[in-house]
Amino acid sequence: MSDTEQYVQEGSVAKSPETGEFVFNQTMLRIKDPARSLAFYTDVLGMTLLKKLDFPEMEFSLFFFGYVRPEDEPIPQDPFERTAYTFQQKALLELTHNWGTEADETFAGYHNGNNDPRGFGHIGLSVPDVDRACSRFEELGVEFVKRPNDGKMKGIAFIKDPDGYWIEILTARVSAALCN
Amino acid sequence: MSDTEQYVQEGSVAKSPETGEFVFNQTMLRIKDPARSLAFYTDVLGMTLLKKLDFPEMEFSLFFFGYVRPEDEPIPQDPFERTAYTFQQKALLELTHNWGTEADETFAGYHNGNNDPRGFGHIGLSVPDVDRACSRFEELGVEFVKRPNDGKMKGIAFIKDPDGYWIEILTARVSAALCN
Repeated sequence: MSDTEQYVQEGSVAKSPETGEFVFNQTMLRIKDPARSLAFYTDVLGMTLLKKLDFPEMEFSLFFFGYVRPEDEPIPQDPFERTAYTFQQKALLELTHNWGTEADETFAGYHNGNNDPRGFGHIGLSVPDVDRACSRFEELGVEFVKRPNDGKMKGIAFIKDPDGYWIEILTARVSAALCN
Repeated sequence: MSDTEQYVQEGSVAKSPETGEFVFNQTMLRIKDPARSLAFYTDVLGMTLLKKLDFPEMEFSLFFFGYVRPEDEPIPQDPFERTAYTFQQKALLELTHNWGTEADETFAGYHNGNNDPRGFGHIGLSVPDVDRACSRFEELGVEFVKRPNDGKMKGIAFIKDPDGYWIEILTARVSAALCN
């Protein structure tokens, strides 16, 4: 692993001026049923739906979610400006709904990447208090992959979204203490 | 789709006080070879490796990348504080390396989610100028799924990372014009 150490030791900002304004804008997951996913990501996880985009010719819709705080810049009300704003933000979740899956009893569902063939693992939320957050999830009927006290890694939890995608729930200083 | 409209129309900040400080911290992807991925995400995409964590007992390592700008708060040098800082940031990419895959000729590679079984789709970067960014990627030998001028959606590109995961490259106002 010594060939990777140079990257850890190097300076803290991007070296290339060409990439200095790049933004990690989105992570896209496909979903079966937007009604269930919208309720989960807004009511349970507290995200804001910044934008919904429909593509009738191709029969799909996109939903962009993010965490918006009162002190953040206001979300534009003009539709074009709201879309441009959305595509400029950091840390959005993009959910893709291919129309019809929500009512298709033969639809097998989407693959969460954690059994073969593996690839994508999870998204993760940093929360002020992992135990308090998980107690609330428990009350709201959220499905757990791992509760904070399960297994070796105490203080880290994994929940499932309505499609079975894993979401890590962590508290920064608790997880840092586990990893050092 | 009318049952989803309420979410678009509602107020712009999270409704639940319990989730007001949640942060979308990470998106985790498994990788075969950290040397290749480190070179790609830092040298080509301009991300900074914020933290590397090794778990020798379980034989894996985690690499956390994000975009850091000169005006951002300084990255702590103390190892514990640097880990805690990492777990508090928005919009990080977490790469998981299960030791040995990089030298295992029988390892089939990871699944990018865009053929069956589908699920995860891509991560996406917002860049100031999609054409300029893609010309640079071209010069650097990056593999394209879709160049900006391919297909119907002009001005949006998809590239592949070393494991074949898709990365959308977009420019906010260009993509907004396409979608409205």
